[in-house]
Amino acid sequence: MIHAFALRLCLPLLSVLVTFTTKAQTSTGQHDTNDDARYIRSIHDMALTDGRCYPWLHHLTKRVGARLAGSPQAAAAVEFTYQMLDTLGLDSVWLQPCMVPHWVRGEKEVVRIAQSEMGTVELHALALGNSVGTGEAGLSAEVVEVMGLGDLEKLGAARLKGKIVFFNRPFDATKLNTFEAYGGAVDQRGSGPSEAAKYGAVAVLVRSMASGLDDVPHTGGLGYRDGIPKIPACAISTNDAELLSGILEKGPVKVYMRTTCQALGDKPSFNVIGEVRGSEHPDEIILVGGHLDSWDVGEGAHDDGAGCVQSMDVLQVFKRLNYRPKRTIRCVLFMNEENGLRGGTAYADEALRKGERHLVAIESDRGGFVPRGFTVDGESAGFVEKLRAMQAWSPLLEPYYLHVKKGGGGADISPLKKQGALLIGYEPDSQRYFDFHHTAADVFEVVNKRELELGTAAMASLIYLMDKYGLE
Amino acid sequence: MIHAFALRLCLPLLSVLVTFTTKAQTSTGQHDTNDDARYIRSIHDMALTDGRCYPWLHHLTKRVGARLAGSPQAAAAVEFTYQMLDTLGLDSVWLQPCMVPHWVRGEKEVVRIAQSEMGTVELHALALGNSVGTGEAGLSAEVVEVMGLGDLEKLGAARLKGKIVFFNRPFDATKLNTFEAYGGAVDQRGSGPSEAAKYGAVAVLVRSMASGLDDVPHTGGLGYRDGIPKIPACAISTNDAELLSGILEKGPVKVYMRTTCQALGDKPSFNVIGEVRGSEHPDEIILVGGHLDSWDVGEGAHDDGAGCVQSMDVLQVFKRLNYRPKRTIRCVLFMNEENGLRGGTAYADEALRKGERHLVAIESDRGGFVPRGFTVDGESAGFVEKLRAMQAWSPLLEPYYLHVKKGGGGADISPLKKQGALLIGYEPDSQRYFDFHHTAADVFEVVNKRELELGTAAMASLIYLMDKYGLE
Repeated sequence: MIHAFALRLCLPLLSVLVTFTTKAQTSTGQHDTNDDARYIRSIHDMALTDGRCYPWLHHLTKRVGARLAGSPQAAAAVEFTYQMLDTLGLDSVWLQPCMVPHWVRGEKEVVRIAQSEMGTVELHALALGNSVGTGEAGLSAEVVEVMGLGDLEKLGAARLKGKIVFFNRPFDATKLNTFEAYGGAVDQRGSGPSEAAKYGAVAVLVRSMASGLDDVPHTGGLGYRDGIPKIPACAISTNDAELLSGILEKGPVKVYMRTTCQALGDKPSFNVIGEVRGSEHPDEIILVGGHLDSWDVGEGAHDDGAGCVQSMDVLQVFKRLNYRPKRTIRCVLFMNEENGLRGGTAYADEALRKGERHLVAIESDRGGFVPRGFTVDGESAGFVEKLRAMQAWSPLLEPYYLHVKKGGGGADISPLKKQGALLIGYEPDSQRYFDFHHTAADVFEVVNKRELELGTAAMASLIYLMDKYGLE
Repeated sequence: MIHAFALRLCLPLLSVLVTFTTKAQTSTGQHDTNDDARYIRSIHDMALTDGRCYPWLHHLTKRVGARLAGSPQAAAAVEFTYQMLDTLGLDSVWLQPCMVPHWVRGEKEVVRIAQSEMGTVELHALALGNSVGTGEAGLSAEVVEVMGLGDLEKLGAARLKGKIVFFNRPFDATKLNTFEAYGGAVDQRGSGPSEAAKYGAVAVLVRSMASGLDDVPHTGGLGYRDGIPKIPACAISTNDAELLSGILEKGPVKVYMRTTCQALGDKPSFNVIGEVRGSEHPDEIILVGGHLDSWDVGEGAHDDGAGCVQSMDVLQVFKRLNYRPKRTIRCVLFMNEENGLRGGTAYADEALRKGERHLVAIESDRGGFVPRGFTVDGESAGFVEKLRAMQAWSPLLEPYYLHVKKGGGGADISPLKKQGALLIGYEPDSQRYFDFHHTAADVFEVVNKRELELGTAAMASLIYLMDKYGLE
């Protein structure tokens, strides 16, 4: 007799067994798990002993620094990574032009509680990316706290006209993956300004998109809707959000805001690309990439210096191992993920124009933390089969704590989805990401060398299997 | 036809299936996976929203600070944790006396390259714990570099007499688990001094037990062998070890060392214990603990403030959830793990004297990093069955990235093994641990709140299952 508990446990495993069998039966190539295990071990050994991602990241963060699209630092990042890829002996390294928006923060933001029971209090603030400025003189208005977009309609123009709307819904701490908590709060930052402006609000304050309580404000992009007045918006630190909320409980609060940010005209920039061409299927492209731009505070170390140097290091590791791929392995460092996605769009447009076929695109844009695995996304046709093909490799990946599951790919590679590419998001552990994301605290020192290198190894291992066996 | 690859993959899974079936058939209790999944979710929610481990750790690190056995800070840590446990409404909270060694570092160490091609260079150094001092005047001698204990016999007294032996074998970076790399290097620190003294060496320098290259020296205990002269020993930072090695390649190097550390007499101290008694099997004890002492540099945040506050928080979470255990759940904060294990020994001695039965003992002493799972150890009789019983819970634990595998328990609980307790080591991710271990850098700020809290939740979840179903 099999106990009900055991049966419930067995069922998912049985389906995995079926998957393995199916995979093995339908696979055209000969799988040699011992060979593959040895090769994946050698990839890890190389990444952990002769990886170059860490010194590259040092240069990109400490020498180049923050590199918002259109900035001189973004241009320096293009130049540096192009030069580094060009040292690796790849088959081709090139720059792919794209036009990018050029937004500048201007002078240090002032966000000040100007009139309250507690008197004057300076808040830790950063203007949101793409925000308009307040004008030289700044603005003063009474603050209305809301817990989300839904509150705006309830309050209406009668309560919001002429006011500063303060979005204060925190992350849900019970979400194990902090990206889910981010997803549950970020509409306040992205859509809050235009939604508040619809009711006559004059400005917006947003609680920083952060996991914990501290004094660090988090910037990040907002999106203005056409036909609605553009009003200025700042993020304030989570500690200051708690403070402001506490003072508001006691009575009316007026805040003075001054920002001088502005959008300048579009500027030319580039994606940076390097590739090793496949020996058997050169027309099947396996893309691995991150984004080269960052916000203009901190050093863009986790977001996304890490993903760039890991993607470059994947090619470096393969070259060092004298690996000759069957398929074309291409590293793409995208420009302008943070406030426009122009690099990702330009890349997909050119791929379409050239009739390139992307078998798969992997993006590393969730920080340089310790690996958890991969999340996979794609057009519905054939998706389940491809996911199963990948999951059949789990016994080779699990010794490195790498799982494969359904989930998001990444912003830069997303336009490739409708061209049939399987999209894969490299997934490091998420617990610390939103301590640093879009802040002055996202610097080289908060990236651990081994955790970063293990990300290189994780992506290279998966690429090795996909290159060797395909996904059919 | 089943492909060979698939068969190879299937076999381990089939054995897991057999395990599940066996477990379910032999289990006396009725498993309700939905109930259990909900309860484990509620444990996580509570730990992540109303855990107290983080503020407790703040007090233990920032207010109490480094707390080597015998120090006033160790006494303050006993008092603080006793008071905190006493606020939780447990059935009993008590102090268990033990005598501990009292070693003091004395004045700031001097380790200086006194004579070399590069002239005088100060090295970042810490005397090893339990080391004798050099005497007021210090000592100067030529340095002989070795890569391990095995080199000593080859060199012999002819080359080592009167010299300072410099052990410089680094961590093996290819070990995925950094504790394995530590295990492969730490004999140099633990046994190096006495082994070198056998050949007439006058002192020892040891490359710090660290994963990477930096300027931070790592202390840690040495063990002198009876009948061999005790010679002074210091750890130097990994950067300085590389430097010293480089200079040695060019010619002879003399080093000046001065340390004033000394062993004072034994002092009375305590383990701190709190428990909730079981309603059905009060005589079956589930122990969860860490060690309250730390080295005398830094704040002992990861080692092992984290393990202490997590263990205390397990009881706090259960109390907040109004959980009524069937078995007795006991939190033990051990004294003197770092340089004597007197607390662990005293605890096991008293358990034996009283005829207490420890079903299981869980130790958290690998830092407050993000959970990976548990490693399990025990006397051979019945071990395989108990491990399988635990692994049958994997489907409930895997959503939280928690695996259960064979491996070490922990130093403090190790004396309970021969009393039949199953030993379980809580295993967080190991990548960053040896950046901080036994250093001035092991401070509150390098512990992430969510990672710490997830450790509480991981241990409470496993304890919930063991309490509910036992391990038979």
